[in-house]
Amino acid sequence: MRVLVVNCGSSSIKYQFLDMDTEQVLCKGLAERIGIPGSRIVHKKDEQKVVIEKPMKDHEDALKYVLELIVDEKVGGVKDLSEIDAVGHRVVHGGEKFSGSVLIDDEVMRALEEYSYLAPLHNPPNIMGIRAMMKLLPGVPNVAVFDTAFHSKMPAKAYLYAIPYEYYKKYKIRRYGFHGTSHRYVSKRTAEILGLDYQKSKIITVHLGNGASVAAVMNGHSIDTSMGFTPLEGLVMGTRSGDIDPSIVTFLMEKEGLTAEEVYTILNKKSGVLGLTDGFSSDMRDIEDKALEGDPVCRLALDIYEYRIAKYIGAYVAAMNGVDAIAFTAGVGENSPITRKEVCENYLGYLGIKIDDEKNNVKGEERIITTPDSKVKVLVVPTNEELMIARDTKEIIEKGLRQLEY
Amino acid sequence: MRVLVVNCGSSSIKYQFLDMDTEQVLCKGLAERIGIPGSRIVHKKDEQKVVIEKPMKDHEDALKYVLELIVDEKVGGVKDLSEIDAVGHRVVHGGEKFSGSVLIDDEVMRALEEYSYLAPLHNPPNIMGIRAMMKLLPGVPNVAVFDTAFHSKMPAKAYLYAIPYEYYKKYKIRRYGFHGTSHRYVSKRTAEILGLDYQKSKIITVHLGNGASVAAVMNGHSIDTSMGFTPLEGLVMGTRSGDIDPSIVTFLMEKEGLTAEEVYTILNKKSGVLGLTDGFSSDMRDIEDKALEGDPVCRLALDIYEYRIAKYIGAYVAAMNGVDAIAFTAGVGENSPITRKEVCENYLGYLGIKIDDEKNNVKGEERIITTPDSKVKVLVVPTNEELMIARDTKEIIEKGLRQLEY
Repeated sequence: MRVLVVNCGSSSIKYQFLDMDTEQVLCKGLAERIGIPGSRIVHKKDEQKVVIEKPMKDHEDALKYVLELIVDEKVGGVKDLSEIDAVGHRVVHGGEKFSGSVLIDDEVMRALEEYSYLAPLHNPPNIMGIRAMMKLLPGVPNVAVFDTAFHSKMPAKAYLYAIPYEYYKKYKIRRYGFHGTSHRYVSKRTAEILGLDYQKSKIITVHLGNGASVAAVMNGHSIDTSMGFTPLEGLVMGTRSGDIDPSIVTFLMEKEGLTAEEVYTILNKKSGVLGLTDGFSSDMRDIEDKALEGDPVCRLALDIYEYRIAKYIGAYVAAMNGVDAIAFTAGVGENSPITRKEVCENYLGYLGIKIDDEKNNVKGEERIITTPDSKVKVLVVPTNEELMIARDTKEIIEKGLRQLEY
Repeated sequence: MRVLVVNCGSSSIKYQFLDMDTEQVLCKGLAERIGIPGSRIVHKKDEQKVVIEKPMKDHEDALKYVLELIVDEKVGGVKDLSEIDAVGHRVVHGGEKFSGSVLIDDEVMRALEEYSYLAPLHNPPNIMGIRAMMKLLPGVPNVAVFDTAFHSKMPAKAYLYAIPYEYYKKYKIRRYGFHGTSHRYVSKRTAEILGLDYQKSKIITVHLGNGASVAAVMNGHSIDTSMGFTPLEGLVMGTRSGDIDPSIVTFLMEKEGLTAEEVYTILNKKSGVLGLTDGFSSDMRDIEDKALEGDPVCRLALDIYEYRIAKYIGAYVAAMNGVDAIAFTAGVGENSPITRKEVCENYLGYLGIKIDDEKNNVKGEERIITTPDSKVKVLVVPTNEELMIARDTKEIIEKGLRQLEY
């Protein structure tokens, strides 16, 4: 079975085309600046790279060119579009309805549209991508894999905010959590690597990308996670504030004469380490480099970044009343030995964690980075959301299911 | 030395008059509904209680009657106002300037006024109280004891929010923390009770009153605390939300057509357990009673309340990379065995904490409530902010200091 995985943003599409008998990536790429001057697709097959530069007015337009590349003789994965068996879509928000990946039909589409008010920046482009694939590949089944679904079984004590209950009833304001596909993949891999029974394990997954979140995965389910109603809550991120005193929002509006939307934009786009470094960079690699050179501003930003991660790990150890393993993943998590080392050594020694510096000196590889006598194991586990989406898609199609339950 | 301790709210004044040679309370009371119809003072000396009901147009008016009570032959503490040696004032916000209690002079008054923008509901009545005492007791020294001061040495990684740095420079938006006098008193007592060297100890103090906060006290200093820029952040409280996704603020404004001030009021006055129970009660005693009767809404509210406390404790164990003792204080902390038990047993077993149910069955008494082999000690330590204010006042006056350093 061959599965095309599609991840649509507002002006970009990431895709991967996989042979799911071997779980091998046949080709993949990124379409950028869709609907904006300078549209292009960077497409890769093994070591080959092709860049297509032409106007793409919308997602359908871009996906049409993506499909052309997929059946290209040299850089494609198959000869004919009929060899694409299914399409798996990353969908950000599944609301309270979807607790697992789902075969897309009219009812699902209506639900996705309904949840657009909860994820106004993310669900609409996801929906555009699905509609485009339905049109471009008629008869080929589409599956939605949600960022929220893995967190959907968290208990009410973790998802309810202490605000008037009517807002939960009226707008479904609650913690949803995001990055669920990554937390699911990484926590499962962690259990496999360590030979733990996933259904009887306590694992904390630390996804540190441009967006970042921590999840407490207990007995195979996310029971709490740091992102909340939106992806703004929780850790310090590249440009997002994460947790703040909520009164700062109203204080800034009043003092600076800002609208709600303007503050929202500041907290999402101008905050995080970018804000802490007075606009220097939102990229942790830049922050880390400068910090190691002795720059005090970047050193402090890195301290704040790590401190928040450590506090969330500590909180989730309490949430699960213990922990077996902690796994770092995504851009920073996979590639920053210093962040992993400082989080674990400066704050988590009380758990009996002992980092092995040599093992920790690794980027983007699966590895246990603690010493054999470390009471809690710490790992690097590169995430693979595309593979997880393709696996779910395959399972749904092969088994003829309407919805998976994790 | 005799010290009058004064704690002025917007329409109330709590006071205690102490003989500081013996640390004995001579008399105390509460003036309520100042400037509102129905003004009254409830005054107590030992077992005697006097209620004065008469119009009190402002804080000066009320304090004039308080002073009359203090020199009253039957229910007072001294014969003449000249026997009041000093007045200690609780002041909520000391900004970044005051890292300890301070003798009040013109410069201090100017600073307090300057910080009123940071605590618009609290500092103005505190200032009114000070001005009134200066007028009513000319020549008697006044000392300010700040809620924020004990937290003033927390490191930048704990006090800076990941928002644009310009807002810290421009408005001093940062974590200040509150309940500092209580956290200081309780952490010191905890070290004394356990025979720990306060300067080499890791203590978590859990102040659970109508407002509630947790502090991580390491080597005699608060290094982090759950209340932040304002007393809204952190734990779930009677009517305050504590932590929420900051985007909920802007979402609610847009969907409900609310102003910044209206959302601020909702989060401060209509949230917390009051909001979670759909308006049933802001009093944890009511919530607890109903929860134990099996009411699912109150049981969930109690779960959420306890879960948040446990997560903060877990986070602060990480912040200090370990913990020696955890102390519960204030209304709920001192009087709710169930909250203490559930927080410790449901979440903190991994720390080697073992609650002794019999010892835990205590209200308002200093006691270690863990078994002798519990790796971390858990205590009940009734707070005494008034005594702490009086002690600081005495020390400043006797030693002729301008400011204390904790």
